[in-house]
Amino acid sequence: MTTTNNDTAPRIYTAALAIIGNEILSGRTQDANLAHLAKTLNGWGVEMREVRVVPDVEAEIVAAVNALRARYDYVFTTGGIGPTHDDITADSIARAFGLALIEHPAAIALLETHYPPGELTPVRRRMARVPEGADLIENPISKAPGFKIGNVFVLAGVPAIMKAQLEGTRPHIAGGRTVQSETVSVLVGESRIAILLEDVQKLYPDVDMGSYPFFRKGSFGTALVLRGREPARLSAAMAALTAALVAAGVEPHPGEIPD
Amino acid sequence: MTTTNNDTAPRIYTAALAIIGNEILSGRTQDANLAHLAKTLNGWGVEMREVRVVPDVEAEIVAAVNALRARYDYVFTTGGIGPTHDDITADSIARAFGLALIEHPAAIALLETHYPPGELTPVRRRMARVPEGADLIENPISKAPGFKIGNVFVLAGVPAIMKAQLEGTRPHIAGGRTVQSETVSVLVGESRIAILLEDVQKLYPDVDMGSYPFFRKGSFGTALVLRGREPARLSAAMAALTAALVAAGVEPHPGEIPD
Repeated sequence: MTTTNNDTAPRIYTAALAIIGNEILSGRTQDANLAHLAKTLNGWGVEMREVRVVPDVEAEIVAAVNALRARYDYVFTTGGIGPTHDDITADSIARAFGLALIEHPAAIALLETHYPPGELTPVRRRMARVPEGADLIENPISKAPGFKIGNVFVLAGVPAIMKAQLEGTRPHIAGGRTVQSETVSVLVGESRIAILLEDVQKLYPDVDMGSYPFFRKGSFGTALVLRGREPARLSAAMAALTAALVAAGVEPHPGEIPD
Repeated sequence: MTTTNNDTAPRIYTAALAIIGNEILSGRTQDANLAHLAKTLNGWGVEMREVRVVPDVEAEIVAAVNALRARYDYVFTTGGIGPTHDDITADSIARAFGLALIEHPAAIALLETHYPPGELTPVRRRMARVPEGADLIENPISKAPGFKIGNVFVLAGVPAIMKAQLEGTRPHIAGGRTVQSETVSVLVGESRIAILLEDVQKLYPDVDMGSYPFFRKGSFGTALVLRGREPARLSAAMAALTAALVAAGVEPHPGEIPD
């Protein structure tokens, strides 16, 4: 979904995420990686466009990763790179690319520095397995690396390790402009501001305008979130929206209303 | 992905979720619906198998919903059913089914009881739009209904409303056996128990065994989660795993270790 509006428009970089794990699908574990990944990538000029959550089933992982890597500039996966039998991400990514699964020599070397002599067991060596030709994504927190093959970045599911590995992907990521956002909140329901919001949206089609109702401390309201790549257009759109709210007798509160 | 292992195996019912919303993909909003939906459906005998998060773009919603409804018994969507211009879920579901978008008379009647006379504005009437032939999913919290068309259930994104509407879907859902789970935790890393876990897994292929490392209060450990539809098999698998842990000198702690 790489889009160029015209010959002079800056390139837009896109990403997708495949969250791998039965524990997410069962509701046992709440994903904590999507929001961090989306915000970090946006800071690097890359826009998250799609997420899929798939079970620990090789055919499902292969299908999701192949669909996503054909369509987006970058694909990230989280989960399934530990040493147990249910950690099948490396195998599945190798299968998706039609590559052999090998032990990466540098990953073995990393693990050898981590464990006392003689304790790099066959089970622990599993964590050094990558598709042939993959680059390691090192991280400062644990020795277990993620890896990169093609445009796919394979990261841990444990949030602290995933965050560290994500920093390790930075040199591999080219990005465009960051999407910036501005928010104004109102203490009225969505239907009260729907028409004026749409009118402003029509004037600024290049600024994405989202309307999100909230219920807090017994009162309700709506957060209006504007997002765009061009700061001047974003500011102009927010000024126009604020003026329209005031003209309609609705008090604008800059930013989000705290919980 | 409806599976029958043999002629006498009970039918397995499956579901997927399409989370619709730029605010989830940007990381502004943390999804809170997946875990609740997965657990509730499992209680009804329906297994969540796949989740997709897609932007507020009609073609993306149509593609995701059509892919999912062809594959799973039930598809749920969350988000995009409010009155503002960025709420395009009803339009998109109608497009996915090739149906006209109409005002549902019962939804209009509900909204008429909710607003004072003369205040059911055109914007508010937007919330009564459904694909032709859809059934309303009422809810006790707000008057804005979700709807059902074919095997697709369209629900709100606001968690409190989504939960209420989900209860309204109950009469439409046929389910099989609930997947039950048992957890044992150990205060050692995954690699210490990987082989014995895999050995027990081989003896109980019908019980799903997941291994999830955790880091809490400066110590680390592993939660071993067993899930299965047959309580006797699940108990037997847990007994076998517990015995294997003890034999390996690893103390088993029933359940999760609290945060």
